[in-house]
Amino acid sequence: MLVVMRNDATGEQVRAVIETIEGMGYRGVPMPGAQRTAICIIGNRGPVNDSLLLTLDGVKETITVTKPYKLVSRETQPESTIIKVDDISIGGGNIVVMAGPCAVESEEQALTIARLVKGYGAQVFRGGAFKPRTSPYSFQGLAEEGLKILDRVRQKTGLLIVTEATDINNIELVEYYADIIQIGARNMQNYSLLRRAGQSSKPILLKRGLAATIDELLMSAEYITSEGNSQVILCERGIRTFSDTTRNTLDLSAIPSIKEVSHLPIIVDPSHAAGRREFVISLSKGAIAVGADGLLVEVHHDPQHALSDGAQSLYPRQFGQLMSETNLGD
Amino acid sequence: MLVVMRNDATGEQVRAVIETIEGMGYRGVPMPGAQRTAICIIGNRGPVNDSLLLTLDGVKETITVTKPYKLVSRETQPESTIIKVDDISIGGGNIVVMAGPCAVESEEQALTIARLVKGYGAQVFRGGAFKPRTSPYSFQGLAEEGLKILDRVRQKTGLLIVTEATDINNIELVEYYADIIQIGARNMQNYSLLRRAGQSSKPILLKRGLAATIDELLMSAEYITSEGNSQVILCERGIRTFSDTTRNTLDLSAIPSIKEVSHLPIIVDPSHAAGRREFVISLSKGAIAVGADGLLVEVHHDPQHALSDGAQSLYPRQFGQLMSETNLGD
Amino acid sequence: MLVVMRNDATGEQVRAVIETIEGMGYRGVPMPGAQRTAICIIGNRGPVNDSLLLTLDGVKETITVTKPYKLVSRETQPESTIIKVDDISIGGGNIVVMAGPCAVESEEQALTIARLVKGYGAQVFRGGAFKPRTSPYSFQGLAEEGLKILDRVRQKTGLLIVTEATDINNIELVEYYADIIQIGARNMQNYSLLRRAGQSSKPILLKRGLAATIDELLMSAEYITSEGNSQVILCERGIRTFSDTTRNTLDLSAIPSIKEVSHLPIIVDPSHAAGRREFVISLSKGAIAVGADGLLVEVHHDPQHALSDGAQSLYPRQFGQLMSETNLGD
Amino acid sequence: MLVVMRNDATGEQVRAVIETIEGMGYRGVPMPGAQRTAICIIGNRGPVNDSLLLTLDGVKETITVTKPYKLVSRETQPESTIIKVDDISIGGGNIVVMAGPCAVESEEQALTIARLVKGYGAQVFRGGAFKPRTSPYSFQGLAEEGLKILDRVRQKTGLLIVTEATDINNIELVEYYADIIQIGARNMQNYSLLRRAGQSSKPILLKRGLAATIDELLMSAEYITSEGNSQVILCERGIRTFSDTTRNTLDLSAIPSIKEVSHLPIIVDPSHAAGRREFVISLSKGAIAVGADGLLVEVHHDPQHALSDGAQSLYPRQFGQLMSETNLGD
Repeated sequence: MLVVMRNDATGEQVRAVIETIEGMGYRGVPMPGAQRTAICIIGNRGPVNDSLLLTLDGVKETITVTKPYKLVSRETQPESTIIKVDDISIGGGNIVVMAGPCAVESEEQALTIARLVKGYGAQVFRGGAFKPRTSPYSFQGLAEEGLKILDRVRQKTGLLIVTEATDINNIELVEYYADIIQIGARNMQNYSLLRRAGQSSKPILLKRGLAATIDELLMSAEYITSEGNSQVILCERGIRTFSDTTRNTLDLSAIPSIKEVSHLPIIVDPSHAAGRREFVISLSKGAIAVGADGLLVEVHHDPQHALSDGAQSLYPRQFGQLMSETNLGD
Repeated sequence: MLVVMRNDATGEQVRAVIETIEGMGYRGVPMPGAQRTAICIIGNRGPVNDSLLLTLDGVKETITVTKPYKLVSRETQPESTIIKVDDISIGGGNIVVMAGPCAVESEEQALTIARLVKGYGAQVFRGGAFKPRTSPYSFQGLAEEGLKILDRVRQKTGLLIVTEATDINNIELVEYYADIIQIGARNMQNYSLLRRAGQSSKPILLKRGLAATIDELLMSAEYITSEGNSQVILCERGIRTFSDTTRNTLDLSAIPSIKEVSHLPIIVDPSHAAGRREFVISLSKGAIAVGADGLLVEVHHDPQHALSDGAQSLYPRQFGQLMSETNLGD
Repeated sequence: MLVVMRNDATGEQVRAVIETIEGMGYRGVPMPGAQRTAICIIGNRGPVNDSLLLTLDGVKETITVTKPYKLVSRETQPESTIIKVDDISIGGGNIVVMAGPCAVESEEQALTIARLVKGYGAQVFRGGAFKPRTSPYSFQGLAEEGLKILDRVRQKTGLLIVTEATDINNIELVEYYADIIQIGARNMQNYSLLRRAGQSSKPILLKRGLAATIDELLMSAEYITSEGNSQVILCERGIRTFSDTTRNTLDLSAIPSIKEVSHLPIIVDPSHAAGRREFVISLSKGAIAVGADGLLVEVHHDPQHALSDGAQSLYPRQFGQLMSETNLGD
Repeated sequence: MLVVMRNDATGEQVRAVIETIEGMGYRGVPMPGAQRTAICIIGNRGPVNDSLLLTLDGVKETITVTKPYKLVSRETQPESTIIKVDDISIGGGNIVVMAGPCAVESEEQALTIARLVKGYGAQVFRGGAFKPRTSPYSFQGLAEEGLKILDRVRQKTGLLIVTEATDINNIELVEYYADIIQIGARNMQNYSLLRRAGQSSKPILLKRGLAATIDELLMSAEYITSEGNSQVILCERGIRTFSDTTRNTLDLSAIPSIKEVSHLPIIVDPSHAAGRREFVISLSKGAIAVGADGLLVEVHHDPQHALSDGAQSLYPRQFGQLMSETNLGD
């Protein structure tokens, strides 16, 4: 349930409503908006009796939220969320480009790629320090050493850093070094990790699982926001189907599907979906055209020797072509 | 196998090569191209011995076609096919818009919609006279009466007509009245119908089956072209997956996948894929952006009362918005 | 809607009800059962006004059929259908085994395999004379010559014959020579073929399409039964999924799903589902255990040289093991 | 790579081989078998040079393991693994039945159900204390209180206990109280949790993810075994497909697929796959028939009021029927 405050409601009145909600055994999360301030009631099972709430000062009305997710629903917050990271805005019509290698391999590799993608107009550098790998015998990333390299990439290039936390043991380190914490597709329903991400002050990039419905993705986002972190960026990266010319099937209809029901920004990872660099540029153009708020693209200065796990990195000049054809370059 | 002729090869030399191929028990299909004339050998099982062919006058070389489809492969014809229907060109960078109702319901309905979509810039009118329906008890279309209505729509509006043939009994009628013969997703592997379509002089719009791989779609196109009709337009219309916010999952990666291996044009049907009109505009924009050669869109002047079978027709003003936002309108 | 007659209703009363239904513009199909005779009303769109019907002599009550399929629904006929072909019963607890090669290759091949599978206890011989093939260049079957071979197999072995009709042009021939007419997975929604099959006096073996839901399969069966042929045997043969250790994913839950809502018998084709002979015996055992009414199995005396299209034929001794381990042998 | 020892090789010779492998920078895991002792080399990237190893005393030969998984491959260990838990054997022809509620709700509930399922012949009691839930607002389980209840169930009934660990924070508690540690489908690729499970002395029940291939499931099992815990029981519980009469599609072909390439036991969870209790008995019979090593079944004394998450619990009498019809009861 959503308690909508009158336009002239005071902060004190909002706090009184939250206290009353807590007295009823639930939690009240304020959702300040351009049009209205509302308080979302979470933690209830079954319907909430709103008779007491409607008597409080400053309360305009109550609205039942029809979706299983509450805080991330557009019913709760009609305006699209815009996440500010440093001087970058994600969502609300801005298009962000995050680019870089699958894995941080060395400082030289990371810096080389970072300078190239920055030159073409990328704003965020991606690169894995902790790598979730199908095989226990595959390279699992440079761990903290990789994070320190990413830190130096930021210092030397000014790019923001997004990198993956793979469990509750390494999220603290990732949080310390990164600007945006990525949670990968395989961890989309790792609820302990989601809760911990919800306690972070850093934005979370949450990738859709290979077999996740839109509702499930939004419920996972709700795990994060219900812990207090409202800065969640969703990411469509392909779903598992029978179709076999791409690694996964990029579901671009996820973009309007999500924008209809949620206020969260959503970006697209064409690299992992396609699994083939030849398709990344056209899928990127498609993603922007359907309304995505950004791209997450694998780029490597030497793709033939990249440590990768299924995606194929673009050559730098292909990334340049992508930025040019999508009018996203400088 | 492909027998590539020298640039200065004569028509007589080409004919001599074809006769030799026939003497070997196969068929030879000439593939005239801007860069070269080649002759595609079909009908062989297993490898072809090319030693005799290489001795013939005008022959430059032979090339093994690596794909199971031959005539529709880009190995056989590097240039993209452009299909001319009246003054419309489909493929090769042109974008065609086919729009209209699911089913022809009456002359008044068809004309009303046709004039609306023409006004917004559509070039081809779609509307079913023979409707394949999941239930034997559902409306199956107006049959020849519907075709006659479509004929009058063409006369009165100048729009070209695309409509579906559902079996080898009605394709002759459809061929008589239509400019483009549609073969629906459920009939993508109806080989008798494909062969009959291959004997037509009209272009064929072949829709991808709900569970068809790209290779299977191209093999079905090969059924048509192997009978002599090289005018095949492919259509992506969504595949069946677990994802549940759309009726089917529009696989826009099919566009670059097909363009890489085949010279045939491919258009996109966002209406049947989405199943919801709210998503049709953004998916249309995505389709154009990834490189589709056109759109097939359901439009109805009164969508709430349309006889439809899963897609939701756009309101005319929504279609106008689509044409405007894709820069496809007049 | 179902008009249920009293136990003591006469044939004349049943006929009067049907005439009344026809007078209302619908069709009435009598469904004689052990417990009751009922008349199923088909052809209506929207609800039927039953007030007149309830006044007729012999009418006990009317029941609304909740499913989109009517005649094949267990609501309409609670007893499981048993189809008699010669001295074989299919459905109702009997388990039928249909075995043989993918394609009829020659009389010697067919007879050799037929004698082997009969020796192990099979009752029906399968073998394709008309073969639907993904490639137009693949072997398409011996056509009528193949049917004549099948006819001689029946004469010489006493086995019944099931073989596929692939379009409305060849179903008449198949009907003439076969005991059971197979409609393949790719033709499950070839409605002209289904309607023509519904006009046959021979039982129809209807295979589930690769992407067909249970409801769609039953709607296709309804196409056949609504034309007057109530002898439909369904066949589960695997659906298309991402899983890659088998050719398709055998959906054995289809068996209880169908038995719950329909009275039609359903058999299982483990050969096409698995695509690997190593799994056919265990899947056959699973199929019988979940309640299938029979098996359709590919067997060849020389599997390495079989003309096949995706399934792997069992070696005869493997078929013997299958019959022995399922207790289906003589 | 596998180093196969001669039949008469001594323990000292085995240790010498392992030391040599470690000297090469890899790890050597002894795989004692009935037929042979072999040492599996893990941790290598790329091929291993076996020339030195072949000179060591007691070494018979080296074998290249062709699969990406090593320790769980049948190439490495031809004999099926049999896991002993107390007096129960899992694998190798024995069939184990694990039954109980979705969640532990109270001691009374757990004991009531435990006594009922034990009476029908179950050997292991299942019940969740930590519940992974799609919604952050759903009941997440009784946590340690639930584990203590499970402990008392074991003491009072003699049933063994299987219960889920959902993250690396609660696996230690689960390990303390449970006989078998379950890792759920959503955590199948939670590699930190898998590694921690690999350091446990308790058997691990590893459920297949909704979109996991067989190879991916086995790679996840390899994560566990590569840490030293060879007691892994796999569990097929349905995959996500378009089919809609069951919650997920039970892939019984997974059983022969896994048994062909791995020596690990595999059981089947029909309750979560079906999502409907009406299908659980027939699917259980199918699972046993295809060769599963056991069942994991949801049972509740009052299913209408069970706290469940998608599966439907059987009524106790239905569970009795299941045990009787599968001949698994006492």
